Amino acid sequence: MAAQDPLPSWNDGATKQKIESFVEKVTKQGSPDFVEPARRIAVFDNDGTLWAEQPVYFEFFFALDQVKAQAPQHPEWKTTEPFKSALAGDMKGMAATGEKGAVELITATHSGMTTNEFARRVNQWVSTARHPKTHRVYTEMVYQPMLELLHYLRDNGFKTYIVSGGGQDFMRAWAEAVYGIPPDQVIGSEGELKYELRDGKPVLVKLPKVALVDDHAGKPVGIERFIGRKPIFAFGNSDGDQQMLEWTTSGDGARFAGLVHHTDAAREFAYDRQSSVGRLDKALDEAAAKDWTVVDMKQDWKVIYPPEKP
Amino acid sequence: MAAQDPLPSWNDGATKQKIESFVEKVTKQGSPDFVEPARRIAVFDNDGTLWAEQPVYFEFFFALDQVKAQAPQHPEWKTTEPFKSALAGDMKGMAATGEKGAVELITATHSGMTTNEFARRVNQWVSTARHPKTHRVYTEMVYQPMLELLHYLRDNGFKTYIVSGGGQDFMRAWAEAVYGIPPDQVIGSEGELKYELRDGKPVLVKLPKVALVDDHAGKPVGIERFIGRKPIFAFGNSDGDQQMLEWTTSGDGARFAGLVHHTDAAREFAYDRQSSVGRLDKALDEAAAKDWTVVDMKQDWKVIYPPEKP
Repeated sequence: MAAQDPLPSWNDGATKQKIESFVEKVTKQGSPDFVEPARRIAVFDNDGTLWAEQPVYFEFFFALDQVKAQAPQHPEWKTTEPFKSALAGDMKGMAATGEKGAVELITATHSGMTTNEFARRVNQWVSTARHPKTHRVYTEMVYQPMLELLHYLRDNGFKTYIVSGGGQDFMRAWAEAVYGIPPDQVIGSEGELKYELRDGKPVLVKLPKVALVDDHAGKPVGIERFIGRKPIFAFGNSDGDQQMLEWTTSGDGARFAGLVHHTDAAREFAYDRQSSVGRLDKALDEAAAKDWTVVDMKQDWKVIYPPEKP
Repeated sequence: MAAQDPLPSWNDGATKQKIESFVEKVTKQGSPDFVEPARRIAVFDNDGTLWAEQPVYFEFFFALDQVKAQAPQHPEWKTTEPFKSALAGDMKGMAATGEKGAVELITATHSGMTTNEFARRVNQWVSTARHPKTHRVYTEMVYQPMLELLHYLRDNGFKTYIVSGGGQDFMRAWAEAVYGIPPDQVIGSEGELKYELRDGKPVLVKLPKVALVDDHAGKPVGIERFIGRKPIFAFGNSDGDQQMLEWTTSGDGARFAGLVHHTDAAREFAYDRQSSVGRLDKALDEAAAKDWTVVDMKQDWKVIYPPEKP
């Protein structure tokens, strides 16, 4: 009897084979590449690797919706950028405020409340907000083939982590339900926290001060800080993942580095070297030079998203 | 047949009973206090809770030994405090440099090298250095009853974490071998890291800049940052653990808060409200007010340390 295919949404071909042969060689007792389970650490970027990221990072949509939701408490936003443009839905006006404006939007919507209150807002948003193009809830814009890969690795004794430039608290609110990844295995960008007693009850307040930008060279830093061991398997999709893949492959023994290449304009989005969101340029060159595994979404994946829930 | 006692080094009495009855009620299916395994999170302070901390924190002995080992590369230390006193073994002279001097000693010995090089130095030290009073290697000054407690909790589906004011990288070098706690479950004070390529090989360099002081109000912050869930069980021994115990017991359902009270001058050390290392004062009052479990070392523990290895 043939064993059941653990990656049914992946087309047969070189990419699928490279993944499976890596997992087989590090898990087979007696193999020269055998790795004990405690060291089977796999790290995944989130935006563009586990779920979609176009036309802008989904967390940015969350921030825009939060500005609208909180506007009644902030009358000054009506006349102050970038909030004025955000409230008017004026994407051009927002773009004109540049990175400074984006940081202000994120700060205003990601700090000043307790961790519990923030998680409540995120959960409410992910259960109701819908993507402008697909009209799906955002947690149903995860990639079915990658969900299968997460399960396949865990079934083979791997511990799966998210290592993302996205907000750590934002992802932790839903990552366990969607990916089966518990909060302590979700590493992301994060702000400082402050412990306080309010009416005798302890709370943690999110401060408007960055503690870690978990992107580019910040990814190996986040990995060391949180995991304290070098992963043997890493998957990303953009130049922001380049250092994570370098760090992962710099260890001894068998190592796997993968990149999702967004090549499917019909079923998802097609972008790489010129994209402002999820740019894949230098890392694509390095992948070719170092024989990292590049997923051609259009060729390698039978489906993109899981079936929609009724 | 009676089940084997999971805590053989604990004398029978109220303390042991409180621990066992807590574990029974949160693990028994159908109990009103049942907690699913994913939420059975137990956090332990290290210095004074899992291993001894007198006459000074053992990591400070490490720093002193490092100053001696690195002195040939730093001729200026012969004439500069606090290094001059450290090299002369002049504890009074060092004390005179105050907290500023202590921070300088820690900074000089805990930064400026790669994470790999630092781990190598720690491992070399813990395998050779010996405590001035007991003449044991430091990793054999762990508390046998607490080792049993860690095992007992893990056997009951708990995930055990260290949450310590000590250096995260310092503890991670030996915590798995000594306590069975892997690096990603060791949370401590930590410095910033910098990712670099050296001769084409990526390294992480330890910077002389603090990222988290994991003590007092920093402990709930470290717990939230790393674990992302409120523990249900916490053990400490000093005022530095007070907020961790408050945070742990502030959740719904059954909660356990414990303090090790150092009452055994003959077998270990006796100190509490007046000690400069591991002061237990405010937290001792709060323990009485809130019915936290206080371990009386002299009464509750049959042995202090494990048998010495040959």
